[in-house]
Amino acid sequence: MKFGRFEQQGRVFYGVVEGDQVGELEGSIFGSYKSTSKQHTLASLRTLVPCVPQNFYCAGLNYAAHIEWANQRTGGNRKVPEKADIGYRSANALVATGEAIVIPADSPGPVQFEGELVAVIGKTARHLPEKDALSCVLGYTLGNDVSERTWQKQDRTLWRAKNCDTFKPMGPFIATGIDPMKLAVAIKVNGATAAEYGTDKMLFSAQHYISQISKYMTLQPGDVVWLGTDGATEPSLKDGDTVEISQKEIGVLRSPVIRAKA
Amino acid sequence: MKFGRFEQQGRVFYGVVEGDQVGELEGSIFGSYKSTSKQHTLASLRTLVPCVPQNFYCAGLNYAAHIEWANQRTGGNRKVPEKADIGYRSANALVATGEAIVIPADSPGPVQFEGELVAVIGKTARHLPEKDALSCVLGYTLGNDVSERTWQKQDRTLWRAKNCDTFKPMGPFIATGIDPMKLAVAIKVNGATAAEYGTDKMLFSAQHYISQISKYMTLQPGDVVWLGTDGATEPSLKDGDTVEISQKEIGVLRSPVIRAKA
Repeated sequence: MKFGRFEQQGRVFYGVVEGDQVGELEGSIFGSYKSTSKQHTLASLRTLVPCVPQNFYCAGLNYAAHIEWANQRTGGNRKVPEKADIGYRSANALVATGEAIVIPADSPGPVQFEGELVAVIGKTARHLPEKDALSCVLGYTLGNDVSERTWQKQDRTLWRAKNCDTFKPMGPFIATGIDPMKLAVAIKVNGATAAEYGTDKMLFSAQHYISQISKYMTLQPGDVVWLGTDGATEPSLKDGDTVEISQKEIGVLRSPVIRAKA
Repeated sequence: MKFGRFEQQGRVFYGVVEGDQVGELEGSIFGSYKSTSKQHTLASLRTLVPCVPQNFYCAGLNYAAHIEWANQRTGGNRKVPEKADIGYRSANALVATGEAIVIPADSPGPVQFEGELVAVIGKTARHLPEKDALSCVLGYTLGNDVSERTWQKQDRTLWRAKNCDTFKPMGPFIATGIDPMKLAVAIKVNGATAAEYGTDKMLFSAQHYISQISKYMTLQPGDVVWLGTDGATEPSLKDGDTVEISQKEIGVLRSPVIRAKA
């Protein structure tokens, strides 16, 4: 099943997506909901980010080839993490599919994509053993952990490198019933494949991350856990580009790129 | 004026606090509200965290004497930041005044307080010059940036060092019309003064931090900006302690401390 969140003439609702049709739901996919008789064409609706998380977790480094590439690219010395220490991003930066990534006027660049699988929490959870950890997951969506590499290197935190407004495209939909460790994620820039990877290459699995988080933190419905990207994240993004993150069951998260005027 | 958020028999509302009385409000202090004729005694209500932020900003190092102390205490080499780079915390960790800080059973310790002034954003804001930056602030509350020092040193991020459930007491109330750069903050452990400092010693002012954030991010009503702590953060907290952060106009943020059983 594929859930989405939509807006039509100011009204916001969840729906079930089937092909180019959306069956409107009453209620919340993070609480209780029921089907309605209202059907829409996908094209007639504005697709919103599928949820706005209260807690926005992000694995950061979770694929060996990405770490190796980042070190070569920047002359850095990132180590392969020994533990599943989670990081954070901020909800201000979220934008839906179709909405633009806006590169700030003063960005020295490069600005790069990082296409990621995202686990969307559906149930309140604490102290989940790894074998049951996915029981709190409603489904999976896609994220683009857009990164300003100069600021990432220079600043004491990742605040503007990773959390500028529009730097966190997420969506388009939440797919249920898929195995997060057996998915193929592809990233295209202007229609040309820039990267492809399998989620089986994660250093720490989705279930391991979620189990670890739940040792110390209560996971809440609507929270998201971004699970990292693999490999290179080039070509760098520039004004006029379009970047797409895709996975077969979830769909295509498409972002035009523009540069803000000074 | 002093705003609070309260619960009574499952009903949640905002109120205006005057002495030991609370005048109930209809609506939200982050949107529109009006007074009602309902009056309560403060003691008859449960005080909640004054807001649950969508975006939870935290300055981290913002006082020279705290950085110096932290370096001496840990043999570390934190530098005085050259820029107002903001960090993040996560809302799962928030607890109200009176609610316990729970030290996880597997914490090697020490666990320490960090008493902070917190700016609470009241209006959507972007691109605020420093001289107008406080115009988006509704008022100020207090926060305790509880920190597990072993994890802070060992882990790749601050996830469990700073964001375990209950590690972010915030409150008790939001005071309006006060100057954030001229306040005296005191921290007591078991009734004895552990630290006292003036917010005039901030390395980067509240207005500078907020202006900088707003260059890249849209500040939203209910967002919070924690502004750092000064000096030493000892004695370390242990089961049975009570820690209080106080400021005259805002009130006392009181947290009993317990240790979780293994």
